[in-house]
Parts: sequence; structure tokens; C-alpha cells
Amino acid sequence: MCQLLGMNCAKPTDITFSFRGFSQRAGITSDHCDGFGIGFFEGKACRVFIDSQSAVQSPVAEFIRNYPIKSKNVISHIRKATQGKITFENAHPFVRELWGRHWIFAHNGHLHGFTPKLAGRFLPVGNTDSEYAFCYILDRLVERFGYAEPAIQDVFDALEDIVPEIAEHGTFNFCMSNGQALFSYAVTKLHWTVREYPFRPARLIDLDLEIDFSQHTTPEDRVAVIATEPLTNNEMWTAFEPGELRLFEHGRPIRTAQTFIQRLVDEAIDPSLRRITQADIY
Amino acid sequence: MCQLLGMNCAKPTDITFSFRGFSQRAGITSDHCDGFGIGFFEGKACRVFIDSQSAVQSPVAEFIRNYPIKSKNVISHIRKATQGKITFENAHPFVRELWGRHWIFAHNGHLHGFTPKLAGRFLPVGNTDSEYAFCYILDRLVERFGYAEPAIQDVFDALEDIVPEIAEHGTFNFCMSNGQALFSYAVTKLHWTVREYPFRPARLIDLDLEIDFSQHTTPEDRVAVIATEPLTNNEMWTAFEPGELRLFEHGRPIRTAQTFIQRLVDEAIDPSLRRITQADIY
Repeated sequence: MCQLLGMNCAKPTDITFSFRGFSQRAGITSDHCDGFGIGFFEGKACRVFIDSQSAVQSPVAEFIRNYPIKSKNVISHIRKATQGKITFENAHPFVRELWGRHWIFAHNGHLHGFTPKLAGRFLPVGNTDSEYAFCYILDRLVERFGYAEPAIQDVFDALEDIVPEIAEHGTFNFCMSNGQALFSYAVTKLHWTVREYPFRPARLIDLDLEIDFSQHTTPEDRVAVIATEPLTNNEMWTAFEPGELRLFEHGRPIRTAQTFIQRLVDEAIDPSLRRITQADIY
Repeated sequence: MCQLLGMNCAKPTDITFSFRGFSQRAGITSDHCDGFGIGFFEGKACRVFIDSQSAVQSPVAEFIRNYPIKSKNVISHIRKATQGKITFENAHPFVRELWGRHWIFAHNGHLHGFTPKLAGRFLPVGNTDSEYAFCYILDRLVERFGYAEPAIQDVFDALEDIVPEIAEHGTFNFCMSNGQALFSYAVTKLHWTVREYPFRPARLIDLDLEIDFSQHTTPEDRVAVIATEPLTNNEMWTAFEPGELRLFEHGRPIRTAQTFIQRLVDEAIDPSLRRITQADIY
């Protein structure tokens, strides 16, 4: 399995503090060693840095830890390969252009038997279930809106329909951004927190490091951080409900929706199926 | 204007020697200081590193010079901004996915009044004529082949039709790759050379640096290098003819075609138009 990190901010912010803690999970505090990736939006374009080495050992990750890139939307992913080879083709976040913007997507989980026909407009470059699901989401968005860019709230409405359909096929926790906003969804495990005025110190769980954000911020700053597991032990992290879709914009959660996943209901009744799901989670 | 560097190889090769010379042109031996980009294919996926700082000053470029990434297809671009702001949105090489592969494209030149209607399948993220032309090329490829991937030679046939149509609008020198092969085209200025067995020493023009490739290669290595201006002063570089389209695969030129550009004929007759073109070139 993998771990996710997302950041959505009111003003361009550097993610080095959170990324330092997060990347420890790639071999030191956890074993997500099979590559990493991180994407930084600037305007409508996203710069993605990926490597097939772990985020602890990769020179690319070391570069990111030391080179503060300010961005309003960032998504990172550390991988423990369970499906698909360790190649750049399979590295998250995946990128596509739609409506004259980059879209990036990173996934934590497994999908079983999720192979709907794709229109061809977006095709996977690698062979992961994750990239397939991303292509499917984009296909469905084009099917619904054509090539005229919809409002972000309309995209949210569409995701409410599309995403639980995919979640019927397995564990589907993801972060997705188009540079304007960050969409996130969880079936099993994802947490979020908001850092805002008055800022306080934050202490990483995975590394002996504390920062006093009040020394580095202005009252206009506001940062939402989304992570598979909380990154700090003195901030309030909220767990996503199973099937919860959230939209973050300008550094705060602006909308949430509870999607219905039939599989979760069925599995609560049938213990043999529940075991399969448990295996997916850990 | 900008400068281009392309590399197509029989075996994965690192480009650090050529890139060291090339990146000197971003402020030391020339003034292409407004950002740089480089894309490295591994299989069907491409990693692109870009920065809005010059390739001399950028920490990303410094990282690339010191971190040898082996690839069979590489394209780099250093920019002197004349059209479009200096933002990541406007940084070459541009990337799109088509037929389950990344495609990258970098352009040197200006296009005047080139605004054909795009289908929507590929839309520019930034506001350069270059990205617009790239989207147009991909649109036309989809129009011709649909979503079934054609052979590389069939793509070449299609480019023979598409590319001179764009070149009627101005200076259009480019490198484009899908990870299998490298297509390059010149209206005004582009050169190529092949390094192969028996390898010899090569000496950079832009930096006091020489390498003896025979010490670092095997007889199976073969590398085609394409650059706006020759990079070395002791290798044989061949200039592209105006309107020449070339296909490189496995480190060698495998096909060439001479396209017809009506504008060049007209400008040879009308001296006032010729002056406009000269301004484009330098």
C-alpha cells in the first residue's frame, strides 16, 4: 500500500516541514520504500518530481527537502509496491491535461476487477489500477461536461457520482488537484487538519522536529493538510468517514459529501468479505 | 528565442556532458536565461524537470548536471522569453499523453497568427505559440489515427503533412519524442551528429571540457545528438535543410523528408518579407 500527503493553501506555501515528516515513512518510521512522487502547482501548471528510489534515499527527494517550492496545491505519494512494477510509468502523482489545466492524482489502495472500457481520450501509461481509475474519472468528466470547463462545484457534483462507483471495487483513498482546489476521498484511511491564524507550534510524529508556525506566517495564511496518517502529535486531525468526499479551496474545507458504497454495507453483513477488506487496509 | 537540445540513443545514456555545454548558453556563452526544461524518458513515461530560473543559476539545473539520469530519449530547452510570460505554464518541454504514452515537445522560433481551432482534446495550459502548435499536432494525429496507436513511420508520414502547414506561420524548429523515437524539424537552424563506435574524444565549445567517449562506452552504444548550434568543435555536425523533418531511432537518423514551405519561396522573392524572417531567426 501507499501513503498520501496533500496540501491546499490560501497563499503559496512551502511544504518542506510536512514533507520531512512524511518522507520518513519511506524506510525509517514505515516501509513505503518503492518510489515517491510530489507535484507542485504554480497557476494552471504542475511540476512533478518522481523517483523510483525511496523518499529517504532518493536524491530527488533530498533535493525537495532542501529546496522550498511555494505552491497553493501540492500532492505527494510514497509507494509500497503491491501492484504494478517499480517504474516511473507507475509513479504517483499521475498527470493529465484537461480544460487547459494540469490535473494530478495520487491513490492509496487496491481496486479489484476495475477495468471499464476507456474512451481513449485518457489512457494509462503504466499498469496500475490507480492510473486506470484516474483515466476513468477524467473520461467521465469529459463525458459530462465536454471540453467547456465547468465550475469546481460542478466537478464536485460529478465526483459524487463517479467516485463511489470505483470504490465498489476496493480501497480507494485519493487526493486530486487541478491547481484551483484539492479533492480528496477516503474509503478506509485519510486525515485532515487546517493550520490558520493564530498559528501555533507543530511537532512531527516521524521526526524529532518542531516548528512554530507563528514565526513564519501572516494572518492571511491558511493551509489545509491531508495525510493518510496524522503528521503531527499536537494538532487536531480529523479522520475522513468511510465514503467521504471533501473539497478544499483557499486552505479550508469548503464542501463535504457522504457517498454510499454498497460493498461496505454488504461486507458488514458477510464476515468472509470483511476479511478481504481488512487485508486491503493494512 | 530559445535553444534546443535532443538526444536519441540505442541504449540508456546520460546527457550530463552535452547538457553541461548546452546550459552554459543560459547566461554565460549566450543569453537564454528565462527558464529551462529537460525531459527524460524511461519506457513510455517521461520525467520533466523545469525551472523559471536560468539553467546556469537554477538549483534544478544544477541537480541535473550532477545527477546522471540514463535515458534513450531526452529533450531540453533553454528559453529567452519573447512571447508568453516566464512561468512554469510556459516552460518547454510540454507534455501530453497520447496512445498511452507521454509525448514531449520543445520549440525554437515564433509563429505569427497561428490560431487554428483546437478540438478540445489537447488544450494549452500556458499562452505560448509553441504549446498551441504542439496541441494542434496532437489533435491532427488523433484526427488521422483515432485512439489506436499507429506505427512510428505512420506518425512520420502524418507529420510530413502537418508540420509545413505550421511552418507557413513562422520559424518552427522543434524536437518531439514519445520515448520510442525522436522527431525533429527545422526551418532555420538545427544541427545533428551521431556518436558511435569507434568513439572518439569530444570537446565542448561552451565550456573548457573534453571527454573521451571511448573510455565510457561499449560498441553497442550509439547516440544521436540534435542541437540548435553544434555543442562540440571536433565532431561532425550536419545542419538541417530549411523544411527538413528527421526521425531518429536507436541513436541514428532513420528517415528524412524535405517539406515544402511556400512562405520561404515567397520571401526569397520579396525582400521586405525576408527582413521579417531574419528578425525571427536571431
